[in-house]
Amino acid sequence: MAPSPTARGWSYARAGVDVARRSRALAGLLAGVRYHPPPTHGRPVELPGHFAGLVRIGRETIAITTDTVGTKVLLAAQLGRWEEVGEDIVGINVNDLAAVGARTAGLVDVILCARPEDAAFAAIGRGLDRGLRAAECALLGGETAIVPEIVDGIDLGGTAIGFFPRGRRPVTGGRIRPGDRILGIPSVGLHSNGYTLARRLLTESHVDLDQPRPGAAVPVGPELLVPTRVYAQASDAIAERSETHGLVHLSGGGVRNLARLHPEVSFVLDRWPEAPPLFGWLQRLGSLPDEEMFRTFNMGIGFAAIVSPTHLAETRRRLARAGAADALEIGHVERGSGIEVPALGLRYEGYE
Amino acid sequence: MAPSPTARGWSYARAGVDVARRSRALAGLLAGVRYHPPPTHGRPVELPGHFAGLVRIGRETIAITTDTVGTKVLLAAQLGRWEEVGEDIVGINVNDLAAVGARTAGLVDVILCARPEDAAFAAIGRGLDRGLRAAECALLGGETAIVPEIVDGIDLGGTAIGFFPRGRRPVTGGRIRPGDRILGIPSVGLHSNGYTLARRLLTESHVDLDQPRPGAAVPVGPELLVPTRVYAQASDAIAERSETHGLVHLSGGGVRNLARLHPEVSFVLDRWPEAPPLFGWLQRLGSLPDEEMFRTFNMGIGFAAIVSPTHLAETRRRLARAGAADALEIGHVERGSGIEVPALGLRYEGYE
Repeated sequence: MAPSPTARGWSYARAGVDVARRSRALAGLLAGVRYHPPPTHGRPVELPGHFAGLVRIGRETIAITTDTVGTKVLLAAQLGRWEEVGEDIVGINVNDLAAVGARTAGLVDVILCARPEDAAFAAIGRGLDRGLRAAECALLGGETAIVPEIVDGIDLGGTAIGFFPRGRRPVTGGRIRPGDRILGIPSVGLHSNGYTLARRLLTESHVDLDQPRPGAAVPVGPELLVPTRVYAQASDAIAERSETHGLVHLSGGGVRNLARLHPEVSFVLDRWPEAPPLFGWLQRLGSLPDEEMFRTFNMGIGFAAIVSPTHLAETRRRLARAGAADALEIGHVERGSGIEVPALGLRYEGYE
Repeated sequence: MAPSPTARGWSYARAGVDVARRSRALAGLLAGVRYHPPPTHGRPVELPGHFAGLVRIGRETIAITTDTVGTKVLLAAQLGRWEEVGEDIVGINVNDLAAVGARTAGLVDVILCARPEDAAFAAIGRGLDRGLRAAECALLGGETAIVPEIVDGIDLGGTAIGFFPRGRRPVTGGRIRPGDRILGIPSVGLHSNGYTLARRLLTESHVDLDQPRPGAAVPVGPELLVPTRVYAQASDAIAERSETHGLVHLSGGGVRNLARLHPEVSFVLDRWPEAPPLFGWLQRLGSLPDEEMFRTFNMGIGFAAIVSPTHLAETRRRLARAGAADALEIGHVERGSGIEVPALGLRYEGYE
């Protein structure tokens, strides 16, 4: 499904993110990588969905994932606030580990910058600490590169590793079946996705970041900087239960991420809650269609678990004890394929 | 020791890399990171030198390190050649794993770019494949971010993980003692360090990258792009031997990296081989003092092992069977501290 230009001509692609072109280039890159090491160097485990890579080392299976905060750092720079995006370095990565059911073990951060600014770095450190606490994760190292010819401002990213406690297996989504229920856990704000588009909307509409949007208590700038919610503990609480058939981080690509779990079922999001007002306000700024909103932003749900219908209440209790008492049923699984939001007439064929 | 301005005023700091300022900012960042996770989330292992972070997970100890190719990518962009720097993504990371004696298991790559270019991505993929083969390492995932507002051109980096085969412990340098010998393994070119300075020298001297320097067979551009030599197999061949007291990757910081292994011995490099002509030519371009060259470039040796004097010949035989027949004795360890290159009258107090 191609991105839909809107009345005002905005879409994620028009805002500078050409996903199809990236996919093509990436396919070309991966076509060149053919090497498979001997088993003495660990045994990679095939995992559909690719939220994380897995490698078997001795009796342990290690999960690894890497991600950057993306253009949210430009908003941080504009506002001179770095603690939130420092915290995001952790959230964006550990939530991908959470999506395969791995328990977090450690993180390395990568900072690329034009020049090292003491105040920004100190704030990033405080943010990292907050994220690490939320994820119960150690900082195992990092890299700081001063590359003024490559980077304007500061780029933030990292890599997280996790593992599977004895008796737990990776959650692949392979056991998802029609009749399963989908439990969503709310997001807080945009997390770390869709900022290229969001920032364009703000600029085009001459939004003052120091003023609240109508109905909001905090100014738009800080509201948009709120860090990614960490779902590590929620995942950890249910990942080794046999009734947990799938886990998904609704990051870049929005609800379409569900298709990464299983290509041969239909995810019907017939109980999607009303999106928080921030999303509606952004949508109106750009006169964006729902189809574009749900493919770009998390629309209020940042993580979801696909569980057996017989264990719905029990799973909610487990999630509640792990800090996700706000988990709610957002849909169910049917025969078919793709993702639907019936109330809005939306249908996506898959992730790409 | 402060960087020394030269007759022509060039130094690594003047070329845009202010190491002291980075260290200060980084100290501020790390001061904010105080969290230590409970042991149920893995147990970080303290490791002096910090070539890699270590975390104990079940019966395994996992090593992780992250690094970027740095400003060498600007040379790649200038020449329109991406295979070499693609290969560097692997080398720069696995050589840090090699420095703690870890065996490579997997890599994730990170590409930040202004726009995804098919030809460049395909070349990066071919380069990654070459590096992975040399390191016997699997590609476990990656991230490609299209961020034209953050990055000019293409930035390349990655994170590698490794492990310690049964019976092997991390090589920390803690057992280094006076009388030990230092075996160096030659580099091929600049690897991936010192390019900010090297590129400034080339520009200031109006060097034509398409022409060979005097005495060289290949043009300067391709000569400077040669990928980082991979020392993974060399390290793997000697890491579990009790006579191997230390391993070091001579990356950014040159010979000063030795001080990361042990602060209370003196590394006397009294057999350092004549540096390959490329280094002398760069040195003359900028009228740089030896002190600046040895603190910035690898000067012909990219990796070193500190071994018991009784096992020097045996270690060389092991290295030869692992593709490093060119390993040679470059110095020895004495009581004291710091790093010396007596023939050139150089002394460095430590790594910073």
